[in-house]
Amino acid sequence: MIISKKSPLQIARQSYLPKLPLALQGHVCLQAGQPTESVANNKEIRQLFPNTYGLPVISLRQAKEGDYVLHTDHPLNVGVILSGGQAPGGHNVISGLYDGLKRQNEKSQLYGFLGGPSGLIEHKYVLLTDQMIDDCRNTGGFDIIGSGRTKLETPEQFDQAIDVCQELSITALVIVGGDDSNTNSCILAEYFQQKGCGIQVIGIPKTIDGDLKNGEIETSFGFDTATKVYSELIGNIQRDANSSKKYWHFIRLMGRNASHVTLECALQSQPNITLISEEVKARNMTLNDVVDYIVSVIVERAKADLNFGTVLVPEGLIEFIPAIGVLINELNDILADNSEFNTLNDDDERCEYIKGMLTPASSDLYSSLPRSIQRQLLLDRDPHGNVMVSRIETEKLLIEMVSKRLAKLKGEGKYKGKFSALSHFFGYEGRCAIPSNFDADYCYSLGLTSVHLIAAGKTGYMAVVRNLIEPASEWIPGGVPLTMLMNLEHRNGKMKPVIQKALVDLNGAPFHYLAAHRNEWAGERTTYVYPGPIQYYGPVEVCDQPTRTLKLEHIK
Amino acid sequence: MIISKKSPLQIARQSYLPKLPLALQGHVCLQAGQPTESVANNKEIRQLFPNTYGLPVISLRQAKEGDYVLHTDHPLNVGVILSGGQAPGGHNVISGLYDGLKRQNEKSQLYGFLGGPSGLIEHKYVLLTDQMIDDCRNTGGFDIIGSGRTKLETPEQFDQAIDVCQELSITALVIVGGDDSNTNSCILAEYFQQKGCGIQVIGIPKTIDGDLKNGEIETSFGFDTATKVYSELIGNIQRDANSSKKYWHFIRLMGRNASHVTLECALQSQPNITLISEEVKARNMTLNDVVDYIVSVIVERAKADLNFGTVLVPEGLIEFIPAIGVLINELNDILADNSEFNTLNDDDERCEYIKGMLTPASSDLYSSLPRSIQRQLLLDRDPHGNVMVSRIETEKLLIEMVSKRLAKLKGEGKYKGKFSALSHFFGYEGRCAIPSNFDADYCYSLGLTSVHLIAAGKTGYMAVVRNLIEPASEWIPGGVPLTMLMNLEHRNGKMKPVIQKALVDLNGAPFHYLAAHRNEWAGERTTYVYPGPIQYYGPVEVCDQPTRTLKLEHIK
Repeated sequence: MIISKKSPLQIARQSYLPKLPLALQGHVCLQAGQPTESVANNKEIRQLFPNTYGLPVISLRQAKEGDYVLHTDHPLNVGVILSGGQAPGGHNVISGLYDGLKRQNEKSQLYGFLGGPSGLIEHKYVLLTDQMIDDCRNTGGFDIIGSGRTKLETPEQFDQAIDVCQELSITALVIVGGDDSNTNSCILAEYFQQKGCGIQVIGIPKTIDGDLKNGEIETSFGFDTATKVYSELIGNIQRDANSSKKYWHFIRLMGRNASHVTLECALQSQPNITLISEEVKARNMTLNDVVDYIVSVIVERAKADLNFGTVLVPEGLIEFIPAIGVLINELNDILADNSEFNTLNDDDERCEYIKGMLTPASSDLYSSLPRSIQRQLLLDRDPHGNVMVSRIETEKLLIEMVSKRLAKLKGEGKYKGKFSALSHFFGYEGRCAIPSNFDADYCYSLGLTSVHLIAAGKTGYMAVVRNLIEPASEWIPGGVPLTMLMNLEHRNGKMKPVIQKALVDLNGAPFHYLAAHRNEWAGERTTYVYPGPIQYYGPVEVCDQPTRTLKLEHIK
Repeated sequence: MIISKKSPLQIARQSYLPKLPLALQGHVCLQAGQPTESVANNKEIRQLFPNTYGLPVISLRQAKEGDYVLHTDHPLNVGVILSGGQAPGGHNVISGLYDGLKRQNEKSQLYGFLGGPSGLIEHKYVLLTDQMIDDCRNTGGFDIIGSGRTKLETPEQFDQAIDVCQELSITALVIVGGDDSNTNSCILAEYFQQKGCGIQVIGIPKTIDGDLKNGEIETSFGFDTATKVYSELIGNIQRDANSSKKYWHFIRLMGRNASHVTLECALQSQPNITLISEEVKARNMTLNDVVDYIVSVIVERAKADLNFGTVLVPEGLIEFIPAIGVLINELNDILADNSEFNTLNDDDERCEYIKGMLTPASSDLYSSLPRSIQRQLLLDRDPHGNVMVSRIETEKLLIEMVSKRLAKLKGEGKYKGKFSALSHFFGYEGRCAIPSNFDADYCYSLGLTSVHLIAAGKTGYMAVVRNLIEPASEWIPGGVPLTMLMNLEHRNGKMKPVIQKALVDLNGAPFHYLAAHRNEWAGERTTYVYPGPIQYYGPVEVCDQPTRTLKLEHIK
């Protein structure tokens, strides 16, 4: 239980009433479309999911005269799980679920499984109450029930889940998660159908990284708030850079598997340099190519006496550089259970040992990296012995390499500026922010929508809300079959059914906008935009704007 | 000139009208108090400042029937300078000045000197216009005219300043700065009086660090906004920590000379551990003592299975640890123009060389530091060869030392928790934030107040606004003689007249509040507060609250 004094904003936000789509007001009519196919590998996915494949997309709308109206009035017992990293709005999914259930039948119950999916198989849960829900309305964080990263993937776990659900008379699970968690939800839904245990599974699209989306899912929740927090900070730093005119700020942003966060922040704040991992990979760039690009902008700005600027760096950049991806894979292989390496205590000895074990190309690349990064690659490893890429301070690596290159150019008389750089990393600052009005409204609607899907007996669906660039009243809630998102991908040497991750589309409107404007933003004139902090009250154009990514992708 | 698209909040804030004290509305009456004395060394300061010493404190109030009313209607030409680090609200000081001057006489002019004090002696200035002012109202940053750190301190510079002012018919300078800049303003005012050149000097109390205050100056501007930005981020991180329950976050905050920022952020967010440099020094703590304290809290929380938390670390901590202060001074001496050291290329050789040169006590201390910090102490030096203390990642140093200590305790069976730590540094994120309503109002009033002091012929004054914990209408504008803030202090081996810096008062109400509650905040229960982002619209209790420091210091 949360025992704490509250800030004035915490108290004020408790009474915010999320804006609702018309479709979720009054009587709701459920409209099913045509059967669907998976995004790829149709035949294999159909075979793997015989009971949940091919379901139609569902839309909810306000009932009209003569409609069949959705009405299930027996009490429903539902369990909710928060899975993986935090994202702003999770508490509103839960409050939407809770309110929807109580409206459906006041005897309906919502159980929260504690600490993520492990709570389900370890019988750790709490029965949610009015007071707990009221305490968490419109707040950030996942602390009402906690989150965790345990994966539910084995039949033994699934059977344990059935036992717990039956013990609590739970007939539906709502699993809030990213692509991995929803992949597991899809498998779980199929398993439950196959067993005929009558437990429904509904997924909710969550991730600040923004890489869980497609034609049917416009955005994952949390992306809006998190990118607004980071953009606030980037804007503040840019105003500082433009005032003191003496620092280059290298800013790394969360988002290891895709660069949506970096792209959105760039669209909001217009920095001088934006690196997009997907582009680096597509153009087969080396680390030196990336450094060249940064250096070229710095040298150009220096000619106009602008010895300051901002560089946005996606967290996953380094893995997307093909040669470094190879190097990291080799390191993982070499370091796995390597007792010889583990006996070496001296950093330098370790580096030398590694150089001897790598392929010549990787060894050369490794040797070319700054010493501090050579060490980071060896020191920080996860419990499986893998390099922890998210801990590599890519922004510092780039500063060091850029700095050396500029010193060389200065010696050759090709650069006359001053280069002083500062580094930043933003991630944890945004994952649990108080949700923006957009995320508060969106998540509450996702919660309510889940109740309708459950009441209609649906399983193997992701709850969605579409038409998000319009005012909330026009939003279109519904459900998308989880199998529709699946394809086969290599995982640990096997082909596995997984949800296809949405990378930054280099042919999409958001990237095109960046590509069309980045030279102007890099250049002489200062074109910084200062978004400022998220506002919850005040003018609509300030408080209720979706991301620029969403607008660019969906405005016709 | 600023050419940029604007964010919705930037546009909305342009039309914000700062709230005004009643005293600055209608006719203003100027009330002088008794002659004043300097804070210390009265005799010496009186001798050094014969023309500006002993002036009375001034208050402005609304004129009543029969009052002598302040009225100067000939046009005034005023120059304004932004000096030192950015602080939110600087633009509002300038817009207040501008509006006040134009109201006094529409032919009055405001010149902005570019890039800080150097603009004054290098003839770099701009005549401010309606459009430039409208563009900067209620915005963060100092970019309207830029800032800089050049010190005006020699008679040659002062004479150049007189030349420039006379060329532009400027009869008053307003210098926006911290304690150093205002020390120089005090000397400049005296010099101008002595020369009889008729140029007035008015100071404005600026610094996010909050160390320019006393009985007459309640707070410096920018402190409110910057601490609110940092507290927003600390709160978000705490919510994250409390949700995932697996990380200790070590957060370093700007504020090298005093810990007001850290203290205020602690009061707003209630972290588990708060280090206050002034306390560390007063208690003569060693680095090991600090580590002991942190470890003791971590071990206690681990007993309750709370393997997460937050630690606030003031930027200047390391210098306040007496033994490290000595070590840094020795390093500065050894490294100054040391050609032998500079020939060493290998990090390890450099470290060994240094160990041999230090006194035994410092050498032992140096050897006990983690390798990465040993290197930082040698690598990062300012142009004078001094260790750049602000670049030392104290939060990482503490993590490394705490981690080692915990591993030892674990080996001894005295600690059973898991320790995984992440580090953050917040400084540049807050210096140029869009000013809070408080700072926007306060700074605009400071600007208007300066015009009244100038119109009344005053010089050697700091513009002030008091009674700040009350609504803006009740605020009391006025002026404090700069000499009143002065004392003598050692600088480069000489006694110099300087403004006394306000450190955290260990007997003051804000520190007492921390000391009375920190055990509770450290302990088992979660008492985090989540302040959220600065709000500019909405309920008064959310949008118009001064800092907790200000409230604790001034509520009777």
